[in-house]
Amino acid sequence: MAPMAEPAPTLAAGSAGTVETQYLDLPEPVRLDCGQELYPVRVAYETYGALSPRRDNVILVCHALSGDAHAAGFAKTPPEESTRDGFAAEDRDGTARKGLGWWDGMIGPGKAFDTDRFFVVATNLLGGCRGTTGPSSADPATGRPYGPDFPVITVGDMVRTERAFLASLGIERVAAVTGGSLGGMQAFEWAIQFPGQVDSVVAIASTHALHPQGVAWNAIARDAIMRDPAWQGGRYYGTGRKPDAGLGVARMVGHITYLSALALQDKFGRRLQFADDLRYTITEPEFQVESYLRHQADSFVKRFDANTYLYTSRALTYFDLARQHGGGSLTRALAGVSARTLLIAFSSDWLYPPSASEEIAGALHALGKQAECHVIEAPYGHDCFLLEEARQTPIIRRFLASG
Amino acid sequence: MAPMAEPAPTLAAGSAGTVETQYLDLPEPVRLDCGQELYPVRVAYETYGALSPRRDNVILVCHALSGDAHAAGFAKTPPEESTRDGFAAEDRDGTARKGLGWWDGMIGPGKAFDTDRFFVVATNLLGGCRGTTGPSSADPATGRPYGPDFPVITVGDMVRTERAFLASLGIERVAAVTGGSLGGMQAFEWAIQFPGQVDSVVAIASTHALHPQGVAWNAIARDAIMRDPAWQGGRYYGTGRKPDAGLGVARMVGHITYLSALALQDKFGRRLQFADDLRYTITEPEFQVESYLRHQADSFVKRFDANTYLYTSRALTYFDLARQHGGGSLTRALAGVSARTLLIAFSSDWLYPPSASEEIAGALHALGKQAECHVIEAPYGHDCFLLEEARQTPIIRRFLASG
Repeated sequence: MAPMAEPAPTLAAGSAGTVETQYLDLPEPVRLDCGQELYPVRVAYETYGALSPRRDNVILVCHALSGDAHAAGFAKTPPEESTRDGFAAEDRDGTARKGLGWWDGMIGPGKAFDTDRFFVVATNLLGGCRGTTGPSSADPATGRPYGPDFPVITVGDMVRTERAFLASLGIERVAAVTGGSLGGMQAFEWAIQFPGQVDSVVAIASTHALHPQGVAWNAIARDAIMRDPAWQGGRYYGTGRKPDAGLGVARMVGHITYLSALALQDKFGRRLQFADDLRYTITEPEFQVESYLRHQADSFVKRFDANTYLYTSRALTYFDLARQHGGGSLTRALAGVSARTLLIAFSSDWLYPPSASEEIAGALHALGKQAECHVIEAPYGHDCFLLEEARQTPIIRRFLASG
Repeated sequence: MAPMAEPAPTLAAGSAGTVETQYLDLPEPVRLDCGQELYPVRVAYETYGALSPRRDNVILVCHALSGDAHAAGFAKTPPEESTRDGFAAEDRDGTARKGLGWWDGMIGPGKAFDTDRFFVVATNLLGGCRGTTGPSSADPATGRPYGPDFPVITVGDMVRTERAFLASLGIERVAAVTGGSLGGMQAFEWAIQFPGQVDSVVAIASTHALHPQGVAWNAIARDAIMRDPAWQGGRYYGTGRKPDAGLGVARMVGHITYLSALALQDKFGRRLQFADDLRYTITEPEFQVESYLRHQADSFVKRFDANTYLYTSRALTYFDLARQHGGGSLTRALAGVSARTLLIAFSSDWLYPPSASEEIAGALHALGKQAECHVIEAPYGHDCFLLEEARQTPIIRRFLASG
């Protein structure tokens, strides 16, 4: 795993093209907020579009809790389970489109992140389970998977990893960092940690700090995993057992928090699964929404690692710009930002409510910085950031064009 | 377990008095909606106040998912864990008041349900684990606990059991049936099943049918229990293991749905548990709200049976007045109601939102029936029905006095 010297960024097809995830080993250890250093660190990534000769057209896409580096196009080797297995994929055209990237509607020629103009780079985040070093990777001290010995990471650590990765690609400056949810947190962190290297931030359905109810949902999801005996204190790799039961519950909890009550009403109502009458069963799904939840759980556990869920969930609950960077003040935390900032939030998003984006915009305005905040009226909750491409696209294109 | 002949209702002290739960064995089997008959059926109950000579001053109190017959006063033998272990009890005076009934603030001399005037009767519901026959009771066919062989029950079955119980006490008519949440569902069911025997309904923070998001939360809670290997298909009694892990997760999910996001913000914010800085831990609570949730889970599993949770949760998701009694029409379902109806809902209750109470009131008004609906502006979510006694009391007293 020698560091790669001068790796050549490869071009990938845009929308509807076939892409392959690539891997890069960082040359140096990553210094973590907890005080430890992590080495080696491999980063899984994909790119879409072409890097300009001046290397000034890079957009870094950061993913949310359950995403990966496959943000756009069709995977050359589609996984068994799509990362688009949620509400979003099914709602669009009635079936999940196997192997399609999780933000394909936003990345490609003529799309919000236009690959005719920009070189879009997506990585799997630090701690991930889809190619980037995480708890399921081999601990060099033992040769076995880290499991619970993987250090507790932060959004800041994810961002330092992303910066080291881009530097290895020869990229020292980004036109934009973007992402939804935890991806937006990474974008804010970039603008604060590396103000000289970020021209703009596009943060969607995100926040400067998760509210206590969100902290609670995440705690419940993590507890569901850790209370599963198959978790085995995190050392389940190679045992033939893994905490699918607990991870499934975690996914179900998360899934409902990503949707609005209205979305569930519209999609399922109180329709029964099999007949017009009750079957009087405790163990089997009786309502369509119950069956849907079990499907979501079963699908998720096939593609996702429970320890990555724990570490990523912990990082996003820790994230708190005011505490980390402002001594309790959001305004002070943002004082050094030089990037232009675009915030998009959705009216029905109760996990990352519009008020958080408005607070950030307010703080940036108070500092005399350039920021715009758009609240899109849309009924589908937090998942809107994956669904409402048509309404986000003109806002993002106009913002990026004015840079 | 011979049926009791002419049991004598006993008088219990009101507020601040000491009460003891009593038990009554029904003389006949209970016919269930699923087609089975259940026998024997024992009912645990408490009474407060004095039965009038004409037996016309009875108020039946129906409890919610995790309640029991101990609605008021101090238990003669306080359980290890209070049924008032939630937000309500702690918020009131900083400490849980051990052994105090779950609705003590509403039942007693001069209170909403005034024991100077009314004879208040509270029972543990069918399927319960606090004295009334449920899945942890002995199956007469085997002599061992029913476990998963307990029949799947409905709110209608609970109400038929309550009616048979009151008949055994020599009570054929009630001045009011009341309850919050699932308790309110029972009150509606009473008014529809036994219109000639119910003078009034006081339904608080309730609904005619849980919305799909509520169905989803309940499905997740049940799945958390059933995915716990210690559940053992429901046959965990006597094995030395029980699904505390899964039941704890179920309780945590439920608990957060009973509170509003604002309540969590006010009570916990993002305050850390032990220090001003992070400890970088996955397994230990880091935020106060995380610690609080674990405490709630640990406390609940000591006093509650997981199978009762499953059966009761299933019953409340089945409950659907329009489907059961109106061929899909709420108005048709309520056409036979003769009771006066008082509905109280709370502005911040997102599990049993005010809109449901307003729909019921609207349907009753359309039928020319007497109904009033009060939406109380209060920030604490569904738990308001346990917390906001001061604001409910004058509404309820006036309503009962006008009967």
